[in-house]
Amino acid sequence: MIKFLTDTTLRVDDFSAAESALSEIKSDAMAGWLNVPVDADELARIKQAAIKINSDSGFLICVGIGGSYLGHKAIIDALGNSGKTKVVYAGNNLSSAALDKLFTEIGTSDFSINVISKSGTTLEPAIAFRLLKAGLVAKYGEQGAKERIYVTTDAEKGVLHDEAVKNGYQRFVVPNNIGGRYSVLTAVGLLPMAVAGINIEELIDGAHTASVGVNMEYAATMSSATVDTAAAIVREASRYAIIRQKLYREQGKETEVLATFEPRLETFSEWWKQLFGESEGKNNQGIFPASVIYTTDLHSLGQYMQQGRRNIFETVVKITTPSQRSIMIPQTQDNADGLNYLAGKSLDYINEKALEATVRAHRLGGIPVLEIEIADLTARSIGELIYFFELSCALSAKISGVNPFDQPGVETYKQNMFQLLGRPS
Amino acid sequence: MIKFLTDTTLRVDDFSAAESALSEIKSDAMAGWLNVPVDADELARIKQAAIKINSDSGFLICVGIGGSYLGHKAIIDALGNSGKTKVVYAGNNLSSAALDKLFTEIGTSDFSINVISKSGTTLEPAIAFRLLKAGLVAKYGEQGAKERIYVTTDAEKGVLHDEAVKNGYQRFVVPNNIGGRYSVLTAVGLLPMAVAGINIEELIDGAHTASVGVNMEYAATMSSATVDTAAAIVREASRYAIIRQKLYREQGKETEVLATFEPRLETFSEWWKQLFGESEGKNNQGIFPASVIYTTDLHSLGQYMQQGRRNIFETVVKITTPSQRSIMIPQTQDNADGLNYLAGKSLDYINEKALEATVRAHRLGGIPVLEIEIADLTARSIGELIYFFELSCALSAKISGVNPFDQPGVETYKQNMFQLLGRPS
Repeated sequence: MIKFLTDTTLRVDDFSAAESALSEIKSDAMAGWLNVPVDADELARIKQAAIKINSDSGFLICVGIGGSYLGHKAIIDALGNSGKTKVVYAGNNLSSAALDKLFTEIGTSDFSINVISKSGTTLEPAIAFRLLKAGLVAKYGEQGAKERIYVTTDAEKGVLHDEAVKNGYQRFVVPNNIGGRYSVLTAVGLLPMAVAGINIEELIDGAHTASVGVNMEYAATMSSATVDTAAAIVREASRYAIIRQKLYREQGKETEVLATFEPRLETFSEWWKQLFGESEGKNNQGIFPASVIYTTDLHSLGQYMQQGRRNIFETVVKITTPSQRSIMIPQTQDNADGLNYLAGKSLDYINEKALEATVRAHRLGGIPVLEIEIADLTARSIGELIYFFELSCALSAKISGVNPFDQPGVETYKQNMFQLLGRPS
Repeated sequence: MIKFLTDTTLRVDDFSAAESALSEIKSDAMAGWLNVPVDADELARIKQAAIKINSDSGFLICVGIGGSYLGHKAIIDALGNSGKTKVVYAGNNLSSAALDKLFTEIGTSDFSINVISKSGTTLEPAIAFRLLKAGLVAKYGEQGAKERIYVTTDAEKGVLHDEAVKNGYQRFVVPNNIGGRYSVLTAVGLLPMAVAGINIEELIDGAHTASVGVNMEYAATMSSATVDTAAAIVREASRYAIIRQKLYREQGKETEVLATFEPRLETFSEWWKQLFGESEGKNNQGIFPASVIYTTDLHSLGQYMQQGRRNIFETVVKITTPSQRSIMIPQTQDNADGLNYLAGKSLDYINEKALEATVRAHRLGGIPVLEIEIADLTARSIGELIYFFELSCALSAKISGVNPFDQPGVETYKQNMFQLLGRPS
């Protein structure tokens, strides 16, 4: 299970803020993710759709932006794609070159589309969908195209919902009580992940087990060890949330840098930045979320982390067993590079020592370092980690006095843009 | 040429700080990049090596970390690879999974290695080189392997230099008077970029022309228009440097977010973060460098940028003509998505309006926005932009009172790590 390590001690009354935050969150209309709800019928349809897509498509193009793509891309990048279909992305920018590159990659291969948008009116995915749909129709005809379009949207309304109903596209649901950045364990993420061969049941189960700590009514069916683990996760998530807010408010640590030592977690860090940045960055307040991939970035941002402005704290994600069989360093006869002292050691071992060395160096440099440790990179562990971060984030935002579930600032540029583009009102 | 736009006006005496910073930089032993020096013989050897690699290798594995890989990866990602050889990267992390993935990608294809390290003792590339060299020998034999190893290192000393001399590897030079993060226009970057089909003469020429402004002795051979342009670049770079420091010192803007609207510039932003972060993050001071790719990140970090803590300023890189032929939005009969008002418009046009809308929205939200405009994404424009940022960065660091060319903090974690790994002393 997840461990959270810090050298900061907390007082009992620090926890009371987290407890009242949790009870407020529980009664929030947008806290649907808290129970990790999965509809069994929809899950079965998702798995069936994934089998069909794996059988008839070299590519699945996921059309979505922000919370509609970051979570599943994060998990697919972390765990790898073992499905027969490559999952690719469109509609998350307005770059002509990026879309051109995607067309070139797909070439003459068979493909399907999963368009993911609650309203259907978000500009980037709407444009990409219009262009890609035209490509599908040109390749497979009107009817053939309809059978290759999978729509994840509102259950009842919206332009995308209406179009899907009219054309008979297969539909999946973006729940009304779960916002985009908390939605990866709904159909939003589950269909692309199933296509990529991710064990989505284990993923859900990892999160679901963790959720027992806040949903004690689930606990009746679980072993007492499981219940203990889940209670521990709530405690660890609360500690992380409380310490973040203390570092921010009492010590002026205005930027949090999420550090991983595994390039596979690069997109996961982007998901984390959206989760925390969009939940907390309000009312001219909030911790600025940044990320680094070490050891890579020790040779770029490492200098700043060691000796730059001390308004930063660092949260390191450590994976106890990052791979089942790590590459070993071989012995050489001439030892020209002087590395024979590492012969017989694994890369993962050396990476672990680099992590320990970095934590020690940055603490020496005056950076508070928090550590989050997970057992391995499996669907179950990632499910647990997703839940841990979602819960910590909601608690942290709530403790800081803002709504963890809205994003009122995102509208400003959209309104400006639609005005500049002359959208009819 | 590059334009720098801001609504902040500067006083004459603001410029005097930049002028004295420039004269100090000119006499610094590590300011070799200021003249964009290129040895004609080495350039010819680089081009010849690139032709050989293109003829005998499906992959070129560039082994290097930090300044030894970020610059050329940034430019190859920005301009695309039109060479016959795919350029891939190793030795910039300690992840076993990442190296495994690379081995899988290369499969049974032919490959060569360009190992790039001034000393040869940096752990990550040294380990990767040991592993990859063993792979080369297994595939091509001792002699065949030697003909596929290209070493970019110190001209006279170091373990990598010595090994290269002993084995007869083809060698290229990391100049003594240019640090890693300023080295992309030397052999460090030029060989991989030539292999990727980048027009390295145009790239160098873009930077070289820009450098005329600080090296008026070059001006004699140039047209007066060129000289004017170059002088303007120095002025624009000075303004950017001065304004950064004013925002930081006088207005408490502690984080700079580099914003681009083009996914092709993602690695370029990483290069920029190393350049500024490693040059300025010293003495417990320095602007924290972060980056976003819009419109992608408007749907993740956009909320924070609009309404979060106001200790940020934003620098937007705008490309006047991002592609020669942009994708057009088609008309549809049913107009189900309501986008027919955009029919006949190009994606690049819509992206440009998104940029304008974002700049306007963020200024309204209380974020100072600086704009840097380049004409297009060509080798020449990128060369000019590289020079612009290197010069601005050195000026800015110098104005803030730190050495733009050292990185003393990078040693701390290395010493810890070597101790944990038990390296013989």
